[in-house]
Amino acid sequence: MEILITDIDVKDIRFPTSLLADGSDAMHTDPDYSCTYVTIKTNKGIEGYGLTFTLGRGTEIVVQACKSMSYLVKGENANNIFTHFGIFWRKLTSESQLRWIGPEKGVIHLATAAIINALWDLWARIEKKPVWKLLTDLTPEQLISTIDFRYITDVITKEEAIKLLKDNQKGKEEREMILRKNGYPAYTTQVGWLGYSDSKVKELCAKYLALGFTSFKAKVGQNLTDDIRRCQLIRDVIGYENKLMVDANQIWDINEAIEWMKQLIKFKPTWIEEPTSPDDVLGHVKIANELRPHGIGVATGEMCANRVMFKQLLQAKAIDYCQIDSARIGGINEILSVYLMAKKLNVPVCPHAGGVGLCEMVQHLQMWDFICLNTSTENRVIEYVDQQHEHFEYPVYIQNACYMPPTRPGYSTKFTEDTIKNYSYPNGEKWKNMYKKDSSNLIQII
Amino acid sequence: MEILITDIDVKDIRFPTSLLADGSDAMHTDPDYSCTYVTIKTNKGIEGYGLTFTLGRGTEIVVQACKSMSYLVKGENANNIFTHFGIFWRKLTSESQLRWIGPEKGVIHLATAAIINALWDLWARIEKKPVWKLLTDLTPEQLISTIDFRYITDVITKEEAIKLLKDNQKGKEEREMILRKNGYPAYTTQVGWLGYSDSKVKELCAKYLALGFTSFKAKVGQNLTDDIRRCQLIRDVIGYENKLMVDANQIWDINEAIEWMKQLIKFKPTWIEEPTSPDDVLGHVKIANELRPHGIGVATGEMCANRVMFKQLLQAKAIDYCQIDSARIGGINEILSVYLMAKKLNVPVCPHAGGVGLCEMVQHLQMWDFICLNTSTENRVIEYVDQQHEHFEYPVYIQNACYMPPTRPGYSTKFTEDTIKNYSYPNGEKWKNMYKKDSSNLIQII
Repeated sequence: MEILITDIDVKDIRFPTSLLADGSDAMHTDPDYSCTYVTIKTNKGIEGYGLTFTLGRGTEIVVQACKSMSYLVKGENANNIFTHFGIFWRKLTSESQLRWIGPEKGVIHLATAAIINALWDLWARIEKKPVWKLLTDLTPEQLISTIDFRYITDVITKEEAIKLLKDNQKGKEEREMILRKNGYPAYTTQVGWLGYSDSKVKELCAKYLALGFTSFKAKVGQNLTDDIRRCQLIRDVIGYENKLMVDANQIWDINEAIEWMKQLIKFKPTWIEEPTSPDDVLGHVKIANELRPHGIGVATGEMCANRVMFKQLLQAKAIDYCQIDSARIGGINEILSVYLMAKKLNVPVCPHAGGVGLCEMVQHLQMWDFICLNTSTENRVIEYVDQQHEHFEYPVYIQNACYMPPTRPGYSTKFTEDTIKNYSYPNGEKWKNMYKKDSSNLIQII
Repeated sequence: MEILITDIDVKDIRFPTSLLADGSDAMHTDPDYSCTYVTIKTNKGIEGYGLTFTLGRGTEIVVQACKSMSYLVKGENANNIFTHFGIFWRKLTSESQLRWIGPEKGVIHLATAAIINALWDLWARIEKKPVWKLLTDLTPEQLISTIDFRYITDVITKEEAIKLLKDNQKGKEEREMILRKNGYPAYTTQVGWLGYSDSKVKELCAKYLALGFTSFKAKVGQNLTDDIRRCQLIRDVIGYENKLMVDANQIWDINEAIEWMKQLIKFKPTWIEEPTSPDDVLGHVKIANELRPHGIGVATGEMCANRVMFKQLLQAKAIDYCQIDSARIGGINEILSVYLMAKKLNVPVCPHAGGVGLCEMVQHLQMWDFICLNTSTENRVIEYVDQQHEHFEYPVYIQNACYMPPTRPGYSTKFTEDTIKNYSYPNGEKWKNMYKKDSSNLIQII
């Protein structure tokens, strides 16, 4: 069956989360969780849905970027794309004029992610499998053919990558059964948004503890006294038998990160996440070297620009936990290369999630990792935040603090029709009503 | 005098340079030299003009980004901005929702550059000085107050930066006189665009040699046989008493770069520019370590995302020449921080130029560097390409292969009215005529 891509529709979808301080951290004090939402249309009626996560203002820029890139996809034969996916991926990211405004970073790479995610969703729908199962069923050679190895061959070659996958084929069926039964362990960030009151934090810790969670993350970095009080408060509820991670969202300079974190040693954080600029590989090395002796690891990745930056973080031993993001680097093709480098250099991947659709997507990737590459969940956990799931046709399903494997075809990225009607920006129903109700608030929201 | 910013106008300006292969290199085979052009309007009639360079497609995305950011500038008091410019710069680059789609990289940072460049142009026009003179006349404390030191304090602090400037105050007047008399040395890239024929390359080498140029740059990286032939051809004309630099525009992987350049050793290139991904600090270290024993330096910077990436390139001794760009990182404020780090870590700055307006801008910065910071032009040279200068009201002026200091107020970034009328995209006169003449060509151009 020849499937031709006939059109790409791009939408600006925003949720007014800043009204409740959901998602607030040291650098992003008032996010409106949003996304650029791409629908790939075909001549056979079947469609693919993909997105990239944004924080409100600026979504319109990513929408423009998706529209500007769409000429590279329209008119293409979908089967050709999937058969030579690595080559197609390079065509998108190396367009001779567009690459100047990246390259492979920022807006243009977020747009690449949205489009590539929609293509994987389309592929999985054609194959009538969830993405994790599609990935799992590809041969090592097929899987590797989706990856562009440009700029990473000094750390991993195509041949090495194929070998890594072949070496871990044994026991695939058994691991798939384990996964279907137990799911994949999650941790929660819901307890510690910076804008939440102490009582709300306490209440949420108790709630998630009761739900079976054993790992909790709190935001830090705006005020040391507050951080100490909040860490104490969380430890009081969750005890020391559970894990606590902390996240500074890039607020610190290098030496500041080291000094600040030394004040939090007694709370035994498993990791400090995003202590400084996501671009500072050497800075992370310095921080990691200072904190490792105290049992604190360094984690980053949600704003890591691309595989070249991940390569260096892994090469330089700058991180103890590799936090891939499903919507910032250029989609599954590039993320797979990060998983492979992390495996080779022996760093566990603990995906970033929580933003619109991120939980929905990363679960697929981490499940593939368990079945086909790392074969274990030890020292690995997927972030979970209980926000915006209700907008998806088939949202994540958490049971005993574990992500249960999706059963429907696709990448779990299709919004309900109501969501599109209500939260399209600026003309969705909810936004229009908000304008009416409170025009003073509007300035803050948009 | 209170000057209020009343509006920001943003234009998409494109020149059809792909028709003549001007500007073509290994990665950018058909650029249409373009820019996003910002005009800052005030209540006093005085205006500021700034731009960021682009390659054609994608300019519309940067235009959207400038428009999205303009709310941060409109209504501001210009004097307040310039008095607390470092703080204002952070306000632009750390906007709590917009920063997600960078941060400080790609489209959003190109837009920052365009706006910040326009603000410096405005400031210099208010002071009735060219930007290089405005910079030179600021006290060390004033100059440093324009810089945001976030993420770089592990390499240079505000206090160290002030001291560096104070230590080099002596002889300022004398150096200004030397500059006014002799100008600042330039090198030419006009001789070696990848799309040019051998005879055109030869002819251009002879032409620029006759004009007094002593440093020449050629593009390499698409085909080794071609590179060897072209390097030989250039050396045949310019001899070995002049300098030859080569530029791969990111085409290679790490080991490939090393092997390829080893085939070009006999042509004694001063530097290999952009051998690989601009993001790969550790990769550049490896390449530099392999090539330095052969007398070949490593240069990069035109696509370096921000001061954090420059910091690491300098810290890790990844580069022998630091190529700041006036339109990619966030304007003069951030570029000054790179000059200061390069000075401290003893790496010469040789600015990237050649794109629309880049020569016009970087001359100001390098002249300030000579007068106030490095006090010497030794081992330093500014790129020069003879393209698109005629579109500026006061273009660069080259004499004896040197940039002569601009005398008019501003940053030399104001287009003529004809240029705006003719090359606005897609509705300028020249573009409309091109549509008419050759609709088949249009697909290639736009």
